[in-house]
This record gives sequence, C-alpha cells and structure tokens, in this order.
Amino acid sequence: MAATFPLPPGSTIGILGGGQLGRMLALAAARLGLDVVILTPDEGSPASRVAARTIVAAYDDPVALQALAQAADVVTYEFENVPVRAVEALTALGAAVAPGADALRVAQDRVAEKTFLNASAAPTVAFAEIGGADDIAAALPRIGLPALLKTRREGYDGKGQAWIRDADAAPAAFAAVGAAPSVLEARADFRRELSIIAARGRDGEIAFYPLSENVHEGGVLRTTLAPAEVTPAVQAQAGQIARSVLDRLDYVGVMGIELFDLGDGGLLVNEIAPRVHNTGHWTQDGCEVDQFELHIRAVAGWPLGDTTPMVQVEMTNLLGDEVHDWLAIAAEPNARLHLYGKGEPRPGRKMGHVNRVKSR
Amino acid sequence: MAATFPLPPGSTIGILGGGQLGRMLALAAARLGLDVVILTPDEGSPASRVAARTIVAAYDDPVALQALAQAADVVTYEFENVPVRAVEALTALGAAVAPGADALRVAQDRVAEKTFLNASAAPTVAFAEIGGADDIAAALPRIGLPALLKTRREGYDGKGQAWIRDADAAPAAFAAVGAAPSVLEARADFRRELSIIAARGRDGEIAFYPLSENVHEGGVLRTTLAPAEVTPAVQAQAGQIARSVLDRLDYVGVMGIELFDLGDGGLLVNEIAPRVHNTGHWTQDGCEVDQFELHIRAVAGWPLGDTTPMVQVEMTNLLGDEVHDWLAIAAEPNARLHLYGKGEPRPGRKMGHVNRVKSR
Repeated sequence: MAATFPLPPGSTIGILGGGQLGRMLALAAARLGLDVVILTPDEGSPASRVAARTIVAAYDDPVALQALAQAADVVTYEFENVPVRAVEALTALGAAVAPGADALRVAQDRVAEKTFLNASAAPTVAFAEIGGADDIAAALPRIGLPALLKTRREGYDGKGQAWIRDADAAPAAFAAVGAAPSVLEARADFRRELSIIAARGRDGEIAFYPLSENVHEGGVLRTTLAPAEVTPAVQAQAGQIARSVLDRLDYVGVMGIELFDLGDGGLLVNEIAPRVHNTGHWTQDGCEVDQFELHIRAVAGWPLGDTTPMVQVEMTNLLGDEVHDWLAIAAEPNARLHLYGKGEPRPGRKMGHVNRVKSR
Repeated sequence: MAATFPLPPGSTIGILGGGQLGRMLALAAARLGLDVVILTPDEGSPASRVAARTIVAAYDDPVALQALAQAADVVTYEFENVPVRAVEALTALGAAVAPGADALRVAQDRVAEKTFLNASAAPTVAFAEIGGADDIAAALPRIGLPALLKTRREGYDGKGQAWIRDADAAPAAFAAVGAAPSVLEARADFRRELSIIAARGRDGEIAFYPLSENVHEGGVLRTTLAPAEVTPAVQAQAGQIARSVLDRLDYVGVMGIELFDLGDGGLLVNEIAPRVHNTGHWTQDGCEVDQFELHIRAVAGWPLGDTTPMVQVEMTNLLGDEVHDWLAIAAEPNARLHLYGKGEPRPGRKMGHVNRVKSR
C-alpha cells in the first residue's frame, strides 16, 4: 500500500505460498522484527505455522488478494508457478510485489526463459519451440540426438520431461509430455551441475554466494556442496551471468541460477528460479546472512548484507522416509538439522535437510 | 498427555509466556520441525506471531491450562515468575512440564534460592532473611555495610532493590522496597560479572557454553562478551557449579547462572534463572547449537548437541530508542541483528539485540 523503502521493523511481508521455502523466509523475517502473512490454498501449511497470519484461498482469489494487498507492505512468492495474473492483480491494487511479474513470466515458460537468457549474455543449450511431433522431427537435425523434450510450462523435479534418443520416438515423447506446448533441448555435454544464488536490492546492489556443486537423482536434488571447488575464472563467469540476468529483469530479491559446468571453462544456464532455491540451503549454516534473510532484506529494501562463506557445507535433502533419521542426525557432531513440519513422509517428498559442516 | 520422549518432529511444545525469549524458542522449535503453542495474557505478543497457536489467558486460568495440557506434548516457560500453581495444575492434568515446579519455587524466592545454592556447592554472598526493618538492624553486624536489600519475590532488572550504606537508613530502605518480605545481601567485592548458560537433558546429560562476561547499567544487561577471557580453573569451577545445581534440581532445560568473579580465582553465584537467558543470546551467532535450540532439545528429550564456540561474540542489547539504529546495524559487516517485533520502544524496553562477531 504505497510502501516506503526500506521497510522498518514491524512491517509486514506477504508471501504467496506456504511450503518450506515460505516457512524459512518467515523465520528469517521474524529474526529481523518483520511480521509475515501467508497466502496459500492449503490449511495448516508449513509456513503458516510460523506466520503471524494466514489467508487460506486460491492464489487468484480476488478477495484474498485484496486482503493480502491491505495487510502486506511488500509481497513476494516462494515458488515460480504462482499465476502471473495474481501478481498483476496485487500490483493493480497498489501492492509492491518483488520479484516482479516479468521474472515470473520468463521463469514460467521455458521458451521465453531460454530466449531471454541468450539475449542476456547467459548462454543455454540449443533449443527449439515445439507445438507438435512434426516440429520435433524438423528441429532434430539442428538439436542433435539425444535431445530432451520438456513442457514449456509447469513440470519440476524431473516431471513433464522425455528423452528422445531416436527420431522415430518423437511422437511417443510428445505424447509422454501430454502433447503440451514444449521445448526441445540439445543435450548438454556437462561435467557437473553447479548453481549460483544471487540477489539484487532495490537500489541495484548485487550480492551472490560462491558457486555450489549439486547432485540430482531422478531429477530431484540430493546434495549440494558449497563453496564448490571451481577456478576463479568460472566463479567470475557465474557472477557475470547472475549480474546480467538480474539487471536486465530489474530484479529485486534472490534468484537461483542452475548451471552446467562444461569442464572446459565454459558454463551454460540450465534454468532460473525467481525465488530462494534448494541449492542455497547450505547458506543457513555456511554464511553470516543466509539466502532467506538475503531475500527478505532485498524485498524490504534493506542493505543486502554479507554473503561471504565461513565454512564449507554439504547439504543433503531428507526425502520421504529419510526424515525418520532425525534422531541420529540430531546426535551427529557438525550436522545441523532443518525440518519443515510436514505431516506425511510420502516417497520423494522434501521433508527437511541437513547441513554438514565440512571444514572450519 | 503421557508423552514419550524423545518427542518426534511434528510434536507440540507449549510455552508459558509470549515475550522475546518465547519468540526465539519458537523459532528454534520450528527449525526442528516442532510446533509451538503459546499461553500468554497479552494479545499479539512477540512469540505468538511466530507460533502455530496462541491461547490468550491468565497463566492460572484453568480452562486455558486444560487447553494447553491437551495441545502440548511438553510445556516449558520463558520467565521465572510464572505462578507455581500453574505448573502444578498442568502436572496434575498429566502434562510434562520442564523445568519442573521445584526450579521455579527456588528461583522465585531469593531466600530459598540462596539457601538452595549454598547447600549445592554453589557459594553466594552472606545473606539474611528480612521481615521488617528491625531484622535489618539485627543482621547488619554480620552482613556488613554497604548491604543490598532486595524483595524475596518479583523484581528484576534492578527493580525492588535498595542499597543500605548506613544502619540508620534501614527503615527507609525497607520502605523503598515496599515493606515486602526481603533478603539482605552482603556486597560482593567482585571484579566483574560472568555467567554460564547450562543445560541438562532428560537422561541427565549436561552441556554448557563457555563463560560470558556481562556488563550491566542501571541493573539492566548492556553487553555480553563470550567466550570471556578466563582461566581454565575458573571455567572448570563454573562448570562444576552448574553441574551441581542442575543435578540437585533434577533439572531439564537451559538455566542461566549469574556469577561474581572475585578476581582471586573464586566465584560466587549471584542468581539463577530457570530459563534461557539474555546473557546467552551470543550463542545464536557464536555456536552450532544456540541456547534456544539447546533448551528445546532438552525439554523434548533430544540429544543436547554441540555447545562448542566457533567465534567470539559481543552481544549488545538494543534498549528503547536504540532500536532505531536498525538500518545502520543491518549495513554493518559482522553484525547480526535480532529484533523482537515489539511495538513501542519505551525507555529501557528490550527491543532487540545485535551480535557482533569479534574474531574468526
């Protein structure tokens, strides 16, 4: 409601989404004396249990958005599939929303994302826009085999994807992704996956953490090691990519940028997430200001603070039943347990994570 | 509720009191996947804004205590002036309460406290029980001048106290403390004030942080420096005092023990607080497991975790208008800001604190 930045303590941060990222953002906001109001369709969400107030409604519910715009001095989001129209409606109601709708638009459509990145000095694999199986056949000579078909929208943690190893398999792959508008991507011949967590403040100040090395299994993040062992040149290149992407979006907040390390000194951008990121959880026990506080500081118009690492940390996600190891982890020296307050440990569900301090 | 310890993630911690200590306990509990329910007489308390649920009622409201006993798997408290009858009522309702009523009884009465301490290998200054001004005159030859008169109950941050520098001043001093049952204390000829934050688990495991050096102004804590510069013998002596006090109370949870350093290798206990303690706030940015998580681990029956310091920290309380320095502190390197979400910065009110990392 026509907020003046920096927001003083006692101000209210609105968060679209009630999952673990919203929960950890709420905890960071509380430390800084800021209140949090959550908008989520779910009753009893992880974030709402540590927030001053929760509005339970669909993200595009006009009454809920009105209430959120009135309650919050700034609104942010914890996942990139928030409807763009919800952000637009909040903005029309006079609410400050950060990151803005542009970032969301780019992140929600893999074709728009790759087009934007390549125009922003942030190279990606070769790609083609796919409307039907025929487009795949037409694109394959340029993209090469094997190629990865992904839906343009939605899909995360490996869902909505199909590998094409043979041109004849194009129709089956297109059916496998639900015959949805898609993008065909060349396979990146990468040595490993890295990511950089970066932030931009309201005054254009940029901050980022050192690169992390990430291991996925079945499309789901398993571990992060950070700071990663990389050359200064690779770190500098990642910093330049982050700066270029954030500046061009006039971005405010934390962004996660996933990278392929080609092993020859080159980096490609895999994807960007306009929010705090699972590969940044190591910062909670590795840095003075963690990614959650960094994001809150950025959207509240505060100085970003110190992102220098203090120690090397290995972050391991606790998926499904792995959360049952909580007692052993709690007894382990140098292990810091973070649990999300989720009920049922369904297979593959992110229940928590552990940060193990590797060196001091 | 016949809880079985250790309490698994998803369990609920009840907290009597809604101030900043309850708030920081709630944040620590959330990190471990535990829910919190607060019982406080105040609407919109600092702790309730980060808790899953709040019951607004007097601490001895029977209906509220019934609701708390039903909701919580274990109940703890954030300040020592909770009515003992509230804890007894909760226990009668089948709730597990930690620390127990004995610790509260001892901490609420300065005569009982000093009697207990001296019987527990935890020496204090000489003292006398005072029921009237005549008792002061009778005690002064043994206690000496100057002497400090304090009410037996209530009183904190320097309130309810009067110095007696002259035997003739006894009646005026007794009137100054409201003619309440009191204790007369000999002046400790101390070099500085230290404290030790210690914890005891449900299995009798003991953990403590290194000593901190504390500076008070007008009876209110101003700064803490920790780990303090002390000899290994002084640190060992403080550890023995803590162990003796906690064991004799069959204590579960964190206790703050304020000490006088006599400068000759000797320590006297000033007072004990059966809760997390302002002089332990440095642990938030100085240790793997801070005093808030340590307390939650203890009362939940978890292993206590690592209390080894990583760095030296200077903690400074932000009193009253000092909270208006938040923006400068947020921009300061190596300064970690902690704000309590309190509204009005009345003079002397504890609004937050800052931990400055001194060395790494």
